[in-house]
Amino acid sequence: MTDVLAATLARIQPPDAQAAADAQARQAGLVKPAGALGVLEELSVRLAGIQRTCPPAVPVKPAVALFAADHGVLAQGVTPWPKDITAVMVEVFRDGGAAINALSRACGADVVVVDIGIDGDVAEGTGEGALVLGRKVRRGTADLAKGPAMTRAEALQALAVGIEVADRLVDEGADLLLTGDMGIGNTTPSAALVAALTDTSADVVTGRGTGIDDETLARKTAIVTAAVERVSGVDDVVDVLAEVGGLEHAGLAGLVLGGAARGVPVVLDGVIAGAAALVAQRLAPASVDHCIAGHRSVEPGHVAALGALGLRPLMDLDLRLGEGSGAALAVPLVQAAARVLGEMATLASVMGGQDA
Amino acid sequence: MTDVLAATLARIQPPDAQAAADAQARQAGLVKPAGALGVLEELSVRLAGIQRTCPPAVPVKPAVALFAADHGVLAQGVTPWPKDITAVMVEVFRDGGAAINALSRACGADVVVVDIGIDGDVAEGTGEGALVLGRKVRRGTADLAKGPAMTRAEALQALAVGIEVADRLVDEGADLLLTGDMGIGNTTPSAALVAALTDTSADVVTGRGTGIDDETLARKTAIVTAAVERVSGVDDVVDVLAEVGGLEHAGLAGLVLGGAARGVPVVLDGVIAGAAALVAQRLAPASVDHCIAGHRSVEPGHVAALGALGLRPLMDLDLRLGEGSGAALAVPLVQAAARVLGEMATLASVMGGQDA
Repeated sequence: MTDVLAATLARIQPPDAQAAADAQARQAGLVKPAGALGVLEELSVRLAGIQRTCPPAVPVKPAVALFAADHGVLAQGVTPWPKDITAVMVEVFRDGGAAINALSRACGADVVVVDIGIDGDVAEGTGEGALVLGRKVRRGTADLAKGPAMTRAEALQALAVGIEVADRLVDEGADLLLTGDMGIGNTTPSAALVAALTDTSADVVTGRGTGIDDETLARKTAIVTAAVERVSGVDDVVDVLAEVGGLEHAGLAGLVLGGAARGVPVVLDGVIAGAAALVAQRLAPASVDHCIAGHRSVEPGHVAALGALGLRPLMDLDLRLGEGSGAALAVPLVQAAARVLGEMATLASVMGGQDA
Repeated sequence: MTDVLAATLARIQPPDAQAAADAQARQAGLVKPAGALGVLEELSVRLAGIQRTCPPAVPVKPAVALFAADHGVLAQGVTPWPKDITAVMVEVFRDGGAAINALSRACGADVVVVDIGIDGDVAEGTGEGALVLGRKVRRGTADLAKGPAMTRAEALQALAVGIEVADRLVDEGADLLLTGDMGIGNTTPSAALVAALTDTSADVVTGRGTGIDDETLARKTAIVTAAVERVSGVDDVVDVLAEVGGLEHAGLAGLVLGGAARGVPVVLDGVIAGAAALVAQRLAPASVDHCIAGHRSVEPGHVAALGALGLRPLMDLDLRLGEGSGAALAVPLVQAAARVLGEMATLASVMGGQDA
């Protein structure tokens, strides 16, 4: 384990139980029937616990950390999309023309794209849409159908990159971290991680990603099945990650750990983030208490991941894009939950005719 | 039928098929896998059709029209809340301390509260949180367990109030209308309307509202069953509304019709709005094509209503508050759908290396 990882794990605390209890009590006294705002009330309590204060501050500076990497398993034909798309999309992110750019503008989020393992050359620097950081651990993973996707040292390095990005964003004022990802083929390692870490059959968790036919799905499922078999006796989650994961999964797991260590909530996007959060959960179970599931994706592995994480997704919009799209869409709900708890009058003040 | 209702119905057109088709085609060319943004893509197509232009404008001036009224059926003990709460809450709305105020501030919506039938005195005028309009048709409905809730003339007058409010808000620049409601006891007439207009058993659609025990639920269900029985042979939806509905239902049905006539999308909140939209649907089927279901409420009648309306709710957050809360929470999703379609680069521009 690297020093930065060990130090980060040591700093992760459970959310503050007193602040959460205060939030629960405050909700019960607001001028509405108790529980009538459903999930929004639970979310406000969670935010109070994570921020260790009640009422929680309304997050006003969200930031998307979008980890981009390539995957050697593309050699097996698990997707119709060519590998080069990963690097092409980074330029689209930088220029501001992608879905995550439109959605980030909508919710006022900054976008930082991290080249953590693209198999191609991507320049660092800022554009209209995003800042691109070069943190390449290697040029894409090896083919996980034939052997380990990466070494343990590379997995640890990628975890440290994720922690570094979380620290950087929080240092710059981010009060809500959003997970994003780009990596052609990355639903294959996601399925392998989810199957391995939730003890679920590869048949159940392997899906069509952004769109594949039955034959490709069968091939993909066989690859995931074999990969999961290889890690069936492996206890150390970093070894599992190195064997069947992706560099963006490692980066995202680091982001979750880094956010949790700083007490900043992390909104998870889809199945790639879900798989990464399972890695973070094994390293520090309390890290997941700092996460919010933005949505449930179409990808079947996401259901298994969310179940094991114990997270209820805020939305179910049939998204299967990635990029952080489902996390960005959830930002207004997180803000609304905090506003309701902080701004509503109390029943006592209304009935007593006093100011709140 | 009043002149204003007849004129409004005559102005309601189906959404523009060409603009919707253009939006569908534009979605298919954006720099993402086709369909990967799921419900958001369908929503953008719907907005284009309603606004009759592609890409649709991002709604920037949402307005909540919150209709408040009382219900004679409270005499039957269908809720533990006292009737006076309706008028009390109007003052909370005006002062800005209610959930809908916090949620409206979050999404930048104005709030207009319409006293369409409160059994109490409420002053007109503006506060920090809302403008209150006095449009009282009568001081609460009669007890629908014992006879008609209101006369046909009163139902028509309340429909006209809803249309007037839609016109007023659109004239003032509103580009997205949100339904809101306040009325202690109003899930009882909602259940009766939904059962009668969707041909569903009262057992299925009658729920616990903001919280009642088993005994009260049984009494409420018996009242709804008997009320629905009385309108089983009634074809004219205004007569059904008058017999078993509420004044806020009539106002909301008018709002839906008025919004549709002006080509402005209407975001529906929960079961009260759903019941009202069923009335609008009977009067002008195309009016529902101008609606967006903000969320699915906990109240069981809402599922039946949404099914009959053919609307898929954007969220499912276990809300059971009313006020327009679930509509306000959906505003950022509507805005995001429009932004994605209007702002994203095209695949052709990215692959060709040209500017979008």
